[in-house]
Amino acid sequence: MTAATTPPLDPAWQDRIRDAILTVLVRGDRRDEPDLDRFVALQHDYPRREGKGLRGRLALASAVAHGGSAEEALPVAAALELFQNWVLVHDDVEDDSDERRGAPALHRTVGPAIAINVGDAMHVAMWDLLIGIRADWRDAVLREFLATIRTTAEGQHLDLTWVADGRFAVDREAYLGMVERKTATYTVVAPLRLGAYVAGRTPHPQLTAAGRVLGRAFQIRDDVLNLTPDPEGGYGKEFAGDLYEGKRTLVLAIAFERLADRDAERLRSLLGRPRAEILASDVAEALALLERCGAVQEAQRIAERDARDGLAGLRQALADAPNREAADAIVALVETLATRDR
Amino acid sequence: MTAATTPPLDPAWQDRIRDAILTVLVRGDRRDEPDLDRFVALQHDYPRREGKGLRGRLALASAVAHGGSAEEALPVAAALELFQNWVLVHDDVEDDSDERRGAPALHRTVGPAIAINVGDAMHVAMWDLLIGIRADWRDAVLREFLATIRTTAEGQHLDLTWVADGRFAVDREAYLGMVERKTATYTVVAPLRLGAYVAGRTPHPQLTAAGRVLGRAFQIRDDVLNLTPDPEGGYGKEFAGDLYEGKRTLVLAIAFERLADRDAERLRSLLGRPRAEILASDVAEALALLERCGAVQEAQRIAERDARDGLAGLRQALADAPNREAADAIVALVETLATRDR
Repeated sequence: MTAATTPPLDPAWQDRIRDAILTVLVRGDRRDEPDLDRFVALQHDYPRREGKGLRGRLALASAVAHGGSAEEALPVAAALELFQNWVLVHDDVEDDSDERRGAPALHRTVGPAIAINVGDAMHVAMWDLLIGIRADWRDAVLREFLATIRTTAEGQHLDLTWVADGRFAVDREAYLGMVERKTATYTVVAPLRLGAYVAGRTPHPQLTAAGRVLGRAFQIRDDVLNLTPDPEGGYGKEFAGDLYEGKRTLVLAIAFERLADRDAERLRSLLGRPRAEILASDVAEALALLERCGAVQEAQRIAERDARDGLAGLRQALADAPNREAADAIVALVETLATRDR
Repeated sequence: MTAATTPPLDPAWQDRIRDAILTVLVRGDRRDEPDLDRFVALQHDYPRREGKGLRGRLALASAVAHGGSAEEALPVAAALELFQNWVLVHDDVEDDSDERRGAPALHRTVGPAIAINVGDAMHVAMWDLLIGIRADWRDAVLREFLATIRTTAEGQHLDLTWVADGRFAVDREAYLGMVERKTATYTVVAPLRLGAYVAGRTPHPQLTAAGRVLGRAFQIRDDVLNLTPDPEGGYGKEFAGDLYEGKRTLVLAIAFERLADRDAERLRSLLGRPRAEILASDVAEALALLERCGAVQEAQRIAERDARDGLAGLRQALADAPNREAADAIVALVETLATRDR
C-alpha cells in the first residue's frame, strides 16, 4: 500500500465525512413544513459543493498516525469541515463575496438575513457532532474547538477591522499574526492536534508550532499565486483578484515597508477604493509597483522558508508516531500544498 | 421571606449572571492587541445593556423549585442569557433594526460584517460556559441547548422567509407554530426544563407544554400592546412599530382570516412596502381595518386564554416541587408577564 492510499487520505473518506455532515444537519423538528425542508437544503448547500476537504482529511490522517482509528475520528473530522462551511457562509456575507466554490455565494441567492441564520444553524449542528463523541477524549476535543473557533473569530475581527478602518499598511508581524489566527489555526493546527487527542494522546508541542508556520506558508503561497499569471490560462479572471478586493496580504505589507512615501501613497490610493471603482489599469499600475520593490519575490521567499521550517518541525513532531505510513502521508500532503503551483 | 425575595429572583442574581457572561467573553488570546480588546468590548456591549434577564432568572428559580441550587445553575442561566444576546446581535443585522435596549443596534455602529463575527464569538463563548458544568447533568443540558437553538433558528427561518417572500397572510396555526419555535422555546420552555435538569430531575411533561403556551401568550400580548396606545405616553414612538416594520403578528393573521377580499388586499398593499415608504396615514388606515374586524380584541382573547391555560399547566407541573416558595415565585413572575399592561 502506498502512502497515497492510506485509508484516511482515500477519497472514500471524504464521502463519509460529507455524509456525517449532511445527516447531522437533517436533525430538528420540521413537522412536514416545506419551508423547513428548504431550511435544511440551504444548510446542505455549501457542504455539497466540491471542496478539498483538507481539514477533515488531515484530522483523520493525524488520528491514524497517532495510533487511533479513523472511524472514531470521523465525527471530529466532520465537525471541522462543518466549522469551515458555516464560517464560509458568514464570511461570504461579511466580505460580500460573489462566488464560493464555483457557484454564487449563499447570500447572493437568499439574501444576507437568511444566510446568517443558516450559518447559525450549521454552527449549532457542529456542536451536535462533537457532543456525541467518546467520553475519553471529549473534553479535550471540545476545548480544542472552543479555542480554535475563538482564535479564528479574533483573526477575522482583525482582518475586518483593517478593512473597515481603511488601514492598508499593516506591518508584516501584524499581518502574519492575523493569518495565524484566522487561517492557520483551524486549517492545520487544530486538525493535527485533534487527531492526537482522538488517539488518546497529548499533541506534541512541535505539532502546534509547525502547524502554525505551515498554515502561514499556505496562505502566503495563496497570496503569491493570486498575483502570478497562470502560464496556461493566461491572465484568468481570478488573477489579481486580491487587489480588486482590497485584501491585506503579505505582499502588500512588504510593499508598504519598501516603497518610498510617494509610491506607497499611490498604491494606497489605487487599492483603497470601493471594489466596483477599481479599474484594470489601477491593478496593472499596482502590480508594477509591487514588482518594482520585489514584494512578490520576498513573500515567495518567506513562504518557502516557512514551508521548509514547518515541514521539518512536522517531521520531528511525528518522528515517534505509531503509524509510520499515515505520518508520512501527512507530511507528503502538506508538502504538496505548501509547494503547489496553482 | 416573601416570594419576591426568593434568592434566584433577587436582582443580585442578575448581576452574578452578567458577571459570568462578561468573564467568559474575556477568555481568548489577545496578546495585548488593542484591536482585540475592542473585540471583547463589542461582545460585552449587549450583555451590559439593561435587560429583563427573564430567561436566566426563570432558569435559576426553576432549579431551586426542583430542589437544586441556584449556585450550580448559574452557568446554565448565564448561557441562556448569552444565547439571547448573540441571537439579538444577529437578529438585529437580519432585521436591520435601528435600536436595541435604548441604544443603536450593534451593526449600526460597527457595520454588519463586524457585528456578525461578534455574534459568532459570543455563540462559541456560550458553549464554553456549558462545557464546564457538572458531569451529572451536562449531557442533558447540552442536548437541551442543541434542541433549543435549532428550534429557535427554525422559527427565525420561517419568519425571515415570510418577509422575504412578501407572504403576509400566513394563517393562525402557522403563525403560532412560528412563535412557539422562535420565541416560546428559548424564553420559557428551555429555562424551566433546564432548571429541572440542574436539580438532577427529568422535567415534567406539563412543564414543556405549559411553557410553550405561556411563551405564545407573552408574544401575543406583545403584539397586542404594540397596537394599543399608551394612555400615559400617548401615541409614543413605539406605538404600532410592528406595522411599520411589516412584522407578522397574530393580529394580522386574524385580520386576513376575517377581512373581505378587497379590504385584505388593501391591508396587504398598505403594509407590504419597504419600511421607509410606509406613512403614518397608511398605518392609521391599517389600524382602522384591524379594529373594524375585531382582530386586536380576538388576539387579546387568545392571549388571555393561553395565559390562563399555561398558568394552570405550570401550577400542575410544579405541584410536587420540593421548594414551594420558589415554585410560587415562578408562577407569580410568569403571571405578571402574561398579564402586563405595558
